Amino acid sequence: MKVLVIHGPNLNLLGDREVETYGRLSLEDINQALKTLARELKVDLEEYQSNVEGEIVNAIQSAKGRFDVIIINPGGYTHYSVAIRDAIAAVKLPAVEVHLSNIYSREEFRHKSVIAPVAAGQIAGFGLNSYLLGLRAAVALLKK
Amino acid sequence: MKVLVIHGPNLNLLGDREVETYGRLSLEDINQALKTLARELKVDLEEYQSNVEGEIVNAIQSAKGRFDVIIINPGGYTHYSVAIRDAIAAVKLPAVEVHLSNIYSREEFRHKSVIAPVAAGQIAGFGLNSYLLGLRAAVALLKK
Amino acid sequence: MKVLVIHGPNLNLLGDREVETYGRLSLEDINQALKTLARELKVDLEEYQSNVEGEIVNAIQSAKGRFDVIIINPGGYTHYSVAIRDAIAAVKLPAVEVHLSNIYSREEFRHKSVIAPVAAGQIAGFGLNSYLLGLRAAVALLKK
Amino acid sequence: MKVLVIHGPNLNLLGDREVETYGRLSLEDINQALKTLARELKVDLEEYQSNVEGEIVNAIQSAKGRFDVIIINPGGYTHYSVAIRDAIAAVKLPAVEVHLSNIYSREEFRHKSVIAPVAAGQIAGFGLNSYLLGLRAAVALLKK
Amino acid sequence: MKVLVIHGPNLNLLGDREVETYGRLSLEDINQALKTLARELKVDLEEYQSNVEGEIVNAIQSAKGRFDVIIINPGGYTHYSVAIRDAIAAVKLPAVEVHLSNIYSREEFRHKSVIAPVAAGQIAGFGLNSYLLGLRAAVALLKK
Amino acid sequence: MKVLVIHGPNLNLLGDREVETYGRLSLEDINQALKTLARELKVDLEEYQSNVEGEIVNAIQSAKGRFDVIIINPGGYTHYSVAIRDAIAAVKLPAVEVHLSNIYSREEFRHKSVIAPVAAGQIAGFGLNSYLLGLRAAVALLKK
Amino acid sequence: MKVLVIHGPNLNLLGDREVETYGRLSLEDINQALKTLARELKVDLEEYQSNVEGEIVNAIQSAKGRFDVIIINPGGYTHYSVAIRDAIAAVKLPAVEVHLSNIYSREEFRHKSVIAPVAAGQIAGFGLNSYLLGLRAAVALLKK
Amino acid sequence: MKVLVIHGPNLNLLGDREVETYGRLSLEDINQALKTLARELKVDLEEYQSNVEGEIVNAIQSAKGRFDVIIINPGGYTHYSVAIRDAIAAVKLPAVEVHLSNIYSREEFRHKSVIAPVAAGQIAGFGLNSYLLGLRAAVALLKK
Amino acid sequence: MKVLVIHGPNLNLLGDREVETYGRLSLEDINQALKTLARELKVDLEEYQSNVEGEIVNAIQSAKGRFDVIIINPGGYTHYSVAIRDAIAAVKLPAVEVHLSNIYSREEFRHKSVIAPVAAGQIAGFGLNSYLLGLRAAVALLKK
Amino acid sequence: MKVLVIHGPNLNLLGDREVETYGRLSLEDINQALKTLARELKVDLEEYQSNVEGEIVNAIQSAKGRFDVIIINPGGYTHYSVAIRDAIAAVKLPAVEVHLSNIYSREEFRHKSVIAPVAAGQIAGFGLNSYLLGLRAAVALLKK
Amino acid sequence: MKVLVIHGPNLNLLGDREVETYGRLSLEDINQALKTLARELKVDLEEYQSNVEGEIVNAIQSAKGRFDVIIINPGGYTHYSVAIRDAIAAVKLPAVEVHLSNIYSREEFRHKSVIAPVAAGQIAGFGLNSYLLGLRAAVALLKK
Amino acid sequence: MKVLVIHGPNLNLLGDREVETYGRLSLEDINQALKTLARELKVDLEEYQSNVEGEIVNAIQSAKGRFDVIIINPGGYTHYSVAIRDAIAAVKLPAVEVHLSNIYSREEFRHKSVIAPVAAGQIAGFGLNSYLLGLRAAVALLKK
Repeated sequence: MKVLVIHGPNLNLLGDREVETYGRLSLEDINQALKTLARELKVDLEEYQSNVEGEIVNAIQSAKGRFDVIIINPGGYTHYSVAIRDAIAAVKLPAVEVHLSNIYSREEFRHKSVIAPVAAGQIAGFGLNSYLLGLRAAVALLKK
Repeated sequence: MKVLVIHGPNLNLLGDREVETYGRLSLEDINQALKTLARELKVDLEEYQSNVEGEIVNAIQSAKGRFDVIIINPGGYTHYSVAIRDAIAAVKLPAVEVHLSNIYSREEFRHKSVIAPVAAGQIAGFGLNSYLLGLRAAVALLKK
Repeated sequence: MKVLVIHGPNLNLLGDREVETYGRLSLEDINQALKTLARELKVDLEEYQSNVEGEIVNAIQSAKGRFDVIIINPGGYTHYSVAIRDAIAAVKLPAVEVHLSNIYSREEFRHKSVIAPVAAGQIAGFGLNSYLLGLRAAVALLKK
Repeated sequence: MKVLVIHGPNLNLLGDREVETYGRLSLEDINQALKTLARELKVDLEEYQSNVEGEIVNAIQSAKGRFDVIIINPGGYTHYSVAIRDAIAAVKLPAVEVHLSNIYSREEFRHKSVIAPVAAGQIAGFGLNSYLLGLRAAVALLKK
Repeated sequence: MKVLVIHGPNLNLLGDREVETYGRLSLEDINQALKTLARELKVDLEEYQSNVEGEIVNAIQSAKGRFDVIIINPGGYTHYSVAIRDAIAAVKLPAVEVHLSNIYSREEFRHKSVIAPVAAGQIAGFGLNSYLLGLRAAVALLKK
Repeated sequence: MKVLVIHGPNLNLLGDREVETYGRLSLEDINQALKTLARELKVDLEEYQSNVEGEIVNAIQSAKGRFDVIIINPGGYTHYSVAIRDAIAAVKLPAVEVHLSNIYSREEFRHKSVIAPVAAGQIAGFGLNSYLLGLRAAVALLKK
Repeated sequence: MKVLVIHGPNLNLLGDREVETYGRLSLEDINQALKTLARELKVDLEEYQSNVEGEIVNAIQSAKGRFDVIIINPGGYTHYSVAIRDAIAAVKLPAVEVHLSNIYSREEFRHKSVIAPVAAGQIAGFGLNSYLLGLRAAVALLKK
Repeated sequence: MKVLVIHGPNLNLLGDREVETYGRLSLEDINQALKTLARELKVDLEEYQSNVEGEIVNAIQSAKGRFDVIIINPGGYTHYSVAIRDAIAAVKLPAVEVHLSNIYSREEFRHKSVIAPVAAGQIAGFGLNSYLLGLRAAVALLKK
Repeated sequence: MKVLVIHGPNLNLLGDREVETYGRLSLEDINQALKTLARELKVDLEEYQSNVEGEIVNAIQSAKGRFDVIIINPGGYTHYSVAIRDAIAAVKLPAVEVHLSNIYSREEFRHKSVIAPVAAGQIAGFGLNSYLLGLRAAVALLKK
Repeated sequence: MKVLVIHGPNLNLLGDREVETYGRLSLEDINQALKTLARELKVDLEEYQSNVEGEIVNAIQSAKGRFDVIIINPGGYTHYSVAIRDAIAAVKLPAVEVHLSNIYSREEFRHKSVIAPVAAGQIAGFGLNSYLLGLRAAVALLKK
Repeated sequence: MKVLVIHGPNLNLLGDREVETYGRLSLEDINQALKTLARELKVDLEEYQSNVEGEIVNAIQSAKGRFDVIIINPGGYTHYSVAIRDAIAAVKLPAVEVHLSNIYSREEFRHKSVIAPVAAGQIAGFGLNSYLLGLRAAVALLKK
Repeated sequence: MKVLVIHGPNLNLLGDREVETYGRLSLEDINQALKTLARELKVDLEEYQSNVEGEIVNAIQSAKGRFDVIIINPGGYTHYSVAIRDAIAAVKLPAVEVHLSNIYSREEFRHKSVIAPVAAGQIAGFGLNSYLLGLRAAVALLKK
């Protein structure tokens, strides 16, 4: 059972970036925590980060046949990237959408995700735990 | 550490209700699974179901001082109940909003939650697992 | 063949209430007329009135297995009660939505019914006759 | 007591047309059923069908003085024909708007009728019975 | 001359609830201040609080014949309860809508009251004084 | 100098139709008054009425080469007939849009004319005088 | 019979201003033409121009008792001046709204007049003739 | 303690103006009633009326240092005057917005006040009493 | 294999009409070019033009059983004719929607086609070639 | 080369007004800084402030022939004054719109300027420097 | 004569991707069919695919001087890429927009193309044939 | 003091691209003019251009610690790139948004910038001078 975690734009700045919204964890901290939990749940996990929409599309496409499920935090692309949405729909892998912050208590334009309708589900607002819960959700999806 | 789980309207029909959307689990099955996980996580858990908006408001109000965190599936009230939203904001307990189905792949009017902006976070689309992940999220919120 | 008639909020005031819009019939008059027609059509008929949204949800839920069809005038809840809509969808009994007044010639907000998409059909604008026609419609639905 | 039934565009195709939405009845079947019920209710009934908006306007205009009430299924014109609406308002005959299908569970643009505000009432969703109930409604309107 | 004061959902939490918005007064403090002013103005005053929309409808209905005017703070129901609106319109008692906070300087959805069009008038933003001014307004309405 | 006056749907009912909105003049009265003024202004005038949108399109098309200017009261088609709009734009004759009633003090949907952007100008609200002023406007347009 | 003509903001620049939209006539030319026609129609006519919204309100208010009808080109205030609208409604003199250009073929925001619903009627698009026709309309209004 | 009362456009016509909406009181009557109550409440009160938006801005600006609180009925400017809104925000005096009529039961465009978000609160619908209650509210604001 | 080409309103004016938008080809030129290509592709082709919406509905209805595919340029009816849309859906013949001009670079209201959702596909912007490509598309649809 | 700087409503309060948004500079400070830079750039500069929309219109009109370019901070009038917009368009002088604050990070209604489409350009968010940059922009416009 | 065909994001997955919407053809099949037709039409044809919006912009830019016409299927970028739109407008090569599926019978957000207004025309809904027709359209554009 | 200037998509085509909108300057001309002014203002300046949204995000991210302020012309990405917006907010460097053309006098969709709310300010409409003024604004921001 193999899990691909995709971090969208600006998530590489975590820890530096808007600490009042995202907390002090770095992306590396998140990846470590994910790997620790992955071992505990006995799944393989790889992570990928890019600021480029089309490279995220590439990463999703190449997951086909190599991974069983995708966890994705699409960052700013959440709100308009039909290209990423179509990639997820096209590869037909189950996907879990995660967000560190509660996007529903922020600016109006962050309340709409164009990704959510093609994901299996969405987890938002729990910081690092959004990812860890997302990993548990992904594993549960595969067990079904 | 005490957790209150609130099930909104029509969730008492689970198992019967729209099986293609919600699956065959009954509310009792969900409550049992939650209690099993609660024991594992060493927290107390109580659940409450009502079809009456105002009784859900009452339940949230009376949670104050007796519970540390609320997990709530507001059902159909998700989309308009300012009264439930205000109750959550008023009692100042952290709240985790959960949904069995992916509300973002259903009718347009289900895409908007008036509860989400006052919740800590939201988990949607994972069936029974939305609740179980919600319980883990709730426990993690309290540990912070 | 058993029919449940549900009267929503403020319909208990009929006869008193806004006579220019609703006429001088009382709810009791409507119920009598319905019962007379039910006898003629050889069906059993029970009626229920509540001002509480959640109690209407309860009534719909408990109709399952005890009634074959529901006639509902959701009153003011017509325009926002997703909870009542979900209850109707959940019990899978055919439902006929009726309104005394022509809701399409009144205030803009009354033109939209959140109940209608899950009802079999809607009858509006004929006063007492909306109910009587609704009973005929309900009986015809069952005969199919 | 004389009733004019007006069938709007494409209703002449009934039986052929989108059977999953409209059923297998032909327009002739509907007219026969209406005539049978008219005899039972002791009213005269004539029917008219046209695909041309302006001819429907003509038919409504010429009903004045020759008929006591109009039953109209405006078909696709329901959603934009101010000309038909104005004709109904101008002749000052009571009108009953009927629809075979439940227009509120179909495409968004079918949810709005520009005719409804000038009709006495609306009946939608009961197939052939929408017309038969419409005839009963029309007769009751005249008796008042 | 008899006045009914209705407090809507979550107002029973006052003093605890969101002190930065509503101040430190409890509902009991408000009721005491109202009674003191009522004695001064030589009117009888009763108060009622409920979190249940339908019970507020019941309270308004039963005011008919027993009270001369209603003061209502509909709380969260302000923004969607057509049922409460219809109850006020139905009983034909003059009603004064009051709000502790200035609803026009809060979230967008709080700017619209579905109650206001059927009330005699609205007073918002003066804390406890919204109620006291509301009582004076109510008494003045009756004197006219 | 030749003027074509086109009367849209339901204008043939004038005098009968909604007297409170349109007054007691018949279409014949309007045509007589127009002819009297035409003689005074030394122009030829013909009038045409139809309830059929496409026949109005035909009339506009055939005006080309036979008339110098068009006066049109598009009636209910004012608000949606792109076909009539396109006909006016296509024949490249100056057109004066007239309305008996003040369409801006009636229902919201009557406030928008799809014809106005391709007309030379619009005159609304003066009853019979809308036509007479329209004739003067038409003559003045030709003199330029 | 006395007529007040009010010219709104920037109309004093006519002749200079956007010649492609408004032509080469000066405001003085318009006033002369109006006076000539007024003599012909045997009415008194005074004109007033101001760029200040409130002074136009003053002018309308002081027309009461001194004039029988108002002709107004509200210029840019057409689209938002509720103050001018209220003044016209308050003095209860009939008012004719005129525009030199066809406001319906210009920018979207010019398509809506807040004045029109309280005017007797509107004439737009005929340049100088909008005023002259407006004067004829005004005289005809008074004759009724 | 000094109170400035500002009356916006067209309020100088009170008594004459739309009696069915505003009643028969003149502005002078209102000012007298306010002065009587001011004496009773032991505060100084001055009033100001203008039809000119910018003069109302001037009046608000010059209140700074000379008055302690403002009562304002912005009349038609309520719905668009950002200039008046900014003046109130700039002088940092508490302001009470009052309206004679219930603006929420009138035309849609009157439901929105651009002033309300910067006022302390709003009182609407009580005729003369809106002002008197506004004065009590103003005095209470200062006492806090 | 038989193809019906339907030309909507005002297309009979081609060559005369708005040359800058539609070019100098007449409708006859288009029909000739279509016939030439039809012979080359070995299909039968008939064409029909009407300015009357309902006659276009008639033409579509009568195509059933006589033609295998429809090519339609609905002209101005593109943007509102639910009647034409319903006719296409009812006859269940594949339809190709064509437009001479690029409707997406013209007025906003031309960007929406109510026909497109029931057509097989749409071709717009290539002048005469829109029709010729449409014929190729139609033939290809039938070959599948 | 002569430059007119127009300061709109409430800018005379600068230094006092909402210091957190606008800083502590007075209008006099801004005017001094502008004059210093004007001398450096060898242009004449005059400034004008008014709270009255129509007086700003007057000032723009009278600039014609006396100034070569206008710098305008329309203050609150930015968002609705079509009268000021029309004045700028009418005098055909190039205009530079400036704002002290970043209007795009403030309330939604401040994001739209009705002036900007007729200005040469807009500078917002740099406090005093918005004016100084505006002066440089104005001089550069004239040099072209 | 040289043609550049640009395939946007996820089109490299064709054949795999959502077979019910796009059919079983691979991108290679499409390119082969295009090359065969290009040879027949005696034009050179090159194709390019990228998932990266900016690389598509690069490809369009570099087409200038090397190609005579562009055929583009912008995939998911159709609905928001102003960058691609601006590139097409900037290089001033004629462009033909093609879509495999009928975007007007899919989700609401797919009905709007930001590319279409700058393309010569659009072809949608014919699968592989959308491309082949697009190639014919492109060749015809060049011949003009 | 170091300044990074970022040019968004299609700006590399300047001089070629839509000369009527953008003038004849090449990007190189702009960069030279910026460097000349930078020397005069005694600041270091580097420029960067990319057509790829994610590379612009990368450039902004890598500016942190190496530059003191950013000048950005986001080109077509102005209107939707939340990713670029988030990058600017994340690095916490002051940013000046510049546009060559007046985006407020172009298509409606260009009136909204998603970047502006996180920029210090915006300068639009002055061609090359938008950049030069932007550099002065940037230097002034740093001096504060």
